[in-house]
This record gives sequence, structure tokens and C-alpha cells, in this order.
Amino acid sequence: MKLLFKKLDLIEGINVVMKAVSTKSSMKILECILIDATEGFIKFTANDMDLGIETKVKGEIKEAGKVAIEARIFSEIVRKLPDSEITFEIEDDTKSLITCENSKFNIQIMDPEDFSPLPRVEKNNKISISQLSLKNIIDQTIFAINDAEKNKVLTGELFEIKGNKLKVVALDKFRIAIRNIELKEEYDLGKVIIPGKSLNEISKILNGGMEDDVMIYFTNNHILFDLGDTVVVSRLIEDTNFFDTDKMISSDYKTKIEINKREFMDCIDRATLLIKEGESKPVFLTIKDGVLDLSINTFIGTMDEKIDIAKEGEDLMISFNPKFLLDILKVLDDEKITLYMTNSKAPCFIRNENNSYIYIVLPVVQ
Amino acid sequence: MKLLFKKLDLIEGINVVMKAVSTKSSMKILECILIDATEGFIKFTANDMDLGIETKVKGEIKEAGKVAIEARIFSEIVRKLPDSEITFEIEDDTKSLITCENSKFNIQIMDPEDFSPLPRVEKNNKISISQLSLKNIIDQTIFAINDAEKNKVLTGELFEIKGNKLKVVALDKFRIAIRNIELKEEYDLGKVIIPGKSLNEISKILNGGMEDDVMIYFTNNHILFDLGDTVVVSRLIEDTNFFDTDKMISSDYKTKIEINKREFMDCIDRATLLIKEGESKPVFLTIKDGVLDLSINTFIGTMDEKIDIAKEGEDLMISFNPKFLLDILKVLDDEKITLYMTNSKAPCFIRNENNSYIYIVLPVVQ
Repeated sequence: MKLLFKKLDLIEGINVVMKAVSTKSSMKILECILIDATEGFIKFTANDMDLGIETKVKGEIKEAGKVAIEARIFSEIVRKLPDSEITFEIEDDTKSLITCENSKFNIQIMDPEDFSPLPRVEKNNKISISQLSLKNIIDQTIFAINDAEKNKVLTGELFEIKGNKLKVVALDKFRIAIRNIELKEEYDLGKVIIPGKSLNEISKILNGGMEDDVMIYFTNNHILFDLGDTVVVSRLIEDTNFFDTDKMISSDYKTKIEINKREFMDCIDRATLLIKEGESKPVFLTIKDGVLDLSINTFIGTMDEKIDIAKEGEDLMISFNPKFLLDILKVLDDEKITLYMTNSKAPCFIRNENNSYIYIVLPVVQ
Repeated sequence: MKLLFKKLDLIEGINVVMKAVSTKSSMKILECILIDATEGFIKFTANDMDLGIETKVKGEIKEAGKVAIEARIFSEIVRKLPDSEITFEIEDDTKSLITCENSKFNIQIMDPEDFSPLPRVEKNNKISISQLSLKNIIDQTIFAINDAEKNKVLTGELFEIKGNKLKVVALDKFRIAIRNIELKEEYDLGKVIIPGKSLNEISKILNGGMEDDVMIYFTNNHILFDLGDTVVVSRLIEDTNFFDTDKMISSDYKTKIEINKREFMDCIDRATLLIKEGESKPVFLTIKDGVLDLSINTFIGTMDEKIDIAKEGEDLMISFNPKFLLDILKVLDDEKITLYMTNSKAPCFIRNENNSYIYIVLPVVQ
């Protein structure tokens, strides 16, 4: 086997599959990239058994072959080579030879037959969505899941497809993030729960193009994202008893405010300075006609700040964990956002007119 | 007390003195900045008892006064305030009031009388040097000291002034870094040993201007750097038995090579990829006419690379700890550098023609 790459093409290929390389495994083969040039093109694969990524890499095949190489050292070496043509070849059964200008590296290789291929995913059930939409719905909900949660369902996101609607839900015990988007076609595929870790990695690979579509295929156990030159397969969380969030959503409210997102976010951000690490302190919101008064009182000191708002309905005093509000405000693009509240003990809704996003956050009850 | 600042002026002042704020002290006052507006101008001071910094800050005094405030929280709040005018005032004996646009903070203050002023340094013995030169000599030698060294002398740098010459020496058990520079005037002040930590912080404050001079004053116990609006005072290391490096320097050699610094550095950098963290492995240099062959052999793999050189004298095989070479190469600005060697067991000298820099590094003896 002998392959020729431009440095940048090689780095791009490594970067894509690197996200599925296991970092702390007892099986060395899970820390490898499979380099396969037996089918007339060059394909890199990584598979940590939860997530698998396969991508085509630009390069010239001088001699076909297949090999597994430890991903981290391969990546580091390529990155530090001169910006020039890189030759990758198999020297013997135990080692590869990487050459670039006057530099030669011999690196251990592993038997490609030990490498676990990606699981086969039947391509019956599929939806199509733009890279931009998929990236947005992941990035705008993923903060609400909790990786360390014992209840596995809470470490994943619900993707529910009904007709031409995709609903994505992430939640923990204190808040819910929901995104509703319209698909170009009608499907009826039901629900799957995708591990948050997989979604995080997929989001990093998506270039966010409005024009580039992702085909998504489902089975009972796996989900496959086909990005064209790159394919990502993730294990699903096997539990269909996701929380029924429809029951939790209400359009009743007694207080509605419209506020500048940036001002609200910066103000809460300043308030959090007074909270010591590891400490939990609420921010107090006093809502009156035309003005929201945000205050905090901690051992370090006090802060008080006024922000102009448009208010409908009743005056209200309500407290929140500032982190929960910040997480939501950080992912919203809107200049102005709307909060719907009922009383100081009921959930607060942050949503837009067409419900394309709905965030629910519980207040702190004193 | 009531002071008005532009946000950027206030941040600049805080940043300068922050370097002398104690981070892990049992005395809360050492974590404070003293804000003094009793002498017709605004002065910030921080003093962790090893290093003290005092700087004038631009601002308007509405009402004179003096107060100590916890540096970290003050700094964080100012940074997150809107980019607007900031008012700082004392509300009562226990708290300050920081106001900016619609935002108000009350922060605890401390009695300014508890704050330790900077030590008085007699201004008899002084030298003058440009900020650029001082910054260079610190940055190009400081890597050779070892902060964790039990022998306190090795945690500092020797500054020796004789005639119009300043010699700066830093060393550990394996290497020596020496910078010789000419001063504009003649002095005869002898030697002092300055703690490395102080020099590190001073280097960060120096703007590196060629035109801006620093006045340096010495006593037996302290050194004072006067930068104009900012004054830095450091404790000295009380031990005048610094290693006599003159004895270690020799101009004899059997092999002299001239090499492109960038190529040499990048090549060693690549070689270090094959060294596992915590492991120590030498790089092997095989020096022949016109070419240096650099190789390394570790558990991960092997690397071999050739670099064009100009050689005088004998062929040589010699090994080095790659980190020690990298540390030196990183701080050198020269495009080409010269190495002088005698044999595989004797120190290697990296120096320029006029000896303005001399680096000595011990080879690894197999």
C-alpha cells in the first residue's frame, strides 16, 4: 500500500474521523483509524462502538491496501510535517512509513482485520434535512441534557418525526429545550433517542450549509447520517419511554414580557460574578410596567440592574438559577425574546410566535 | 471617595497591578488592590510581599479617599460592565458602590490601613536600560531556571553589572542561558539575584518599547523597576554565591555547525511527538559534511530527518534532551544559528559572534 496526500486533505480527513476515535479504551484497535484504499478510493474509518465515522479522503493511490494506525500519533505527526506532499506506505507487517520532504517516520500499525466495521444500517426509513437546520437544532437544545445522568434517557435527545414535522426535545430535571421544524416531505417514522455525545460530534462535522442536505436513516438500534463524503452512524438509546413533553406545555400565562436578549444575557452574566464557584444562588426578577429589575445578593456583594421591557399582564416577582437562563439566551439568535410566566412557582416559557423554539425553565422557589 | 473612570483605563490599571496580587494567601488583604486618591492622582497598588506593583490610573477624582478592595472580583466586575463610564465610590465603611449605566454593584471593602505599602528602596544605585532590552534578556533566559528547585539561587537570575556591561545568567543542572548587553553608561554595582517569578511578571508589564527606558534601583534586599507611571519592587534572593559561569565557558571546539534555526526547531519538534508524556528520550545528531541527520527511536516508532548545514571541524555523533534544545531555539530570533561542540560528552555551546547570547547545554551521555 502506498498513498500520496496533500497535507491539508489528510488533516481534514483525520479531523473528521477523529471524533469517533476512542480516547480511553482498553482495546488499542478502538484508538485506531482504518485506512482503506482497496475500493478505488481512500476511505478513513473510526469506530468507538457508540459512534462510527467514515469519510472519503482526497489522495492518490499508488498501491492499494488497508491498514489500521493509532489515530492520535498519526494525527500529531501529520500536523507537524512541512506543508508539502505526504507519502503513506506500509513498510512491513508491523510498521508504516510516513515521508514528507526530508522527514521519515516509522510508526507501528495494526491488523486491519481486527478493526470493527461500522454497523450496517438498512436504508428503509429516512428523512432529509439541510446541514444548517440539523446543526441549529442540535446546538440549540444539547445544553439541556446531562451526560452524567443515571437515567440514560436524559443523556439523549428525542427526535420525533410526524408528517412533515420534526420535533427535537432535550431535558433535565429543571428545564426543557424543544425545537420544532418543518421538513420538506411527509414521513411517519415515530421516535428515536440519540445519545447527546453523538449529536455533539455530528454537530462539529456539519459545515452548516443551507444547500447541503443530510440524509438520515433509522433502524431500531442505529441512526445513520449521510453527509455525502462522510457517513456517521450512532447507536440509539433503547428506551422509547421519553417524557411526554406535550403535557407540560401550556399556552396560558399571566405575565408576558418582551426583552432585548443581549441586555438580559449580559446583565445575568454580570450577576453570576457574585456567585462563588460551587455555590448556587438565584437571581431575583421584579417585573413591572416597562422595567425589569434584576438583583442578586451573595456573600461577595449585591448587584441591582434595570432593563427596559414591554410587559403585558400582571406584575411579578420570580427567581431563577442564572445558569439555566444563560444557557438558553446563549443559543438564541433573536434580538428580542419573549418570556411567558404565570406565577413565582410555575414554569417560565421562552418561545417565539410559531413555537419553532420552546424553552421551559423552572423558577427557584424560596 | 468618588472616582470616575473610562472602562478601558480602569482595566489597564487593574491588569498591571493584578500581577502582584496574591492568589492563595491566608491573608485576605494580600488579595486586595489598594486604591489611593489622596495625593491628587489615582494610584493602584498590589503587594504579595515578594513582588509589589504601583501604577497611576487615568480617571477623575470627584472626592478624595483610599480603600482596599478584593482584586479578583473587582477585576471581573469591571471587565463585564458595559463599555461606558464607571463610577467607583465608598458607600460606607464596609462596602463600595460601582455604577455603570443601569448597573449597580455593592462590593465589600477592607481597611486601607491594613494594606502593606511597597518597601522603600533607596535610590542610590541605579542603571538605565530600554524596555525592549530588558524584556528580551528576561524572555531569552527565564526558561532555564527551575521554580521548584530547592536551591533558591536556581529559582532566580543573576544580574551582574560591571562597567558598561550587564550580564544576565539563568541556569539549572543541565543548561545555562547567558545574555551580555552593553549599557549606555558605566556603573559598578556588582551582583544581585532576582526571583524568576518577579522577572516573569515584569516582562509582562514591559511594553517592549525601544525608546522607553526603565530605571532600575538596587539595594541589598530589593530591586525597583521604575517604568514611569508604574513602579515594580521585588524582593531579592539573599545569596551572593551564584555559580561562577565564567569558569564553565570555553571557546575551544572541535565541531562547529551553522544551521537554519526554523528547520532545526521544527525537526526536533516533530521528533518529540514520538516521546510519551513523562518519558525522557534523547534525539541523536549525526553531524557530517553538509548534513545533520537527526533521529529518534522510541516505543511509538522512529523518525529520521536530514537538514542541510555548514560544518567546520570533525564529524560527530551526539545526543540531547530535545526539550533543552527546543527551549533555546524558541527564544532565538536569528535565522541561522551556530553550535560549537567538542565531543559527545562535553557541553554544546550555542552562541553568536559577539557573545551577546551564550547557551550551554549538556549532551545525554549513553
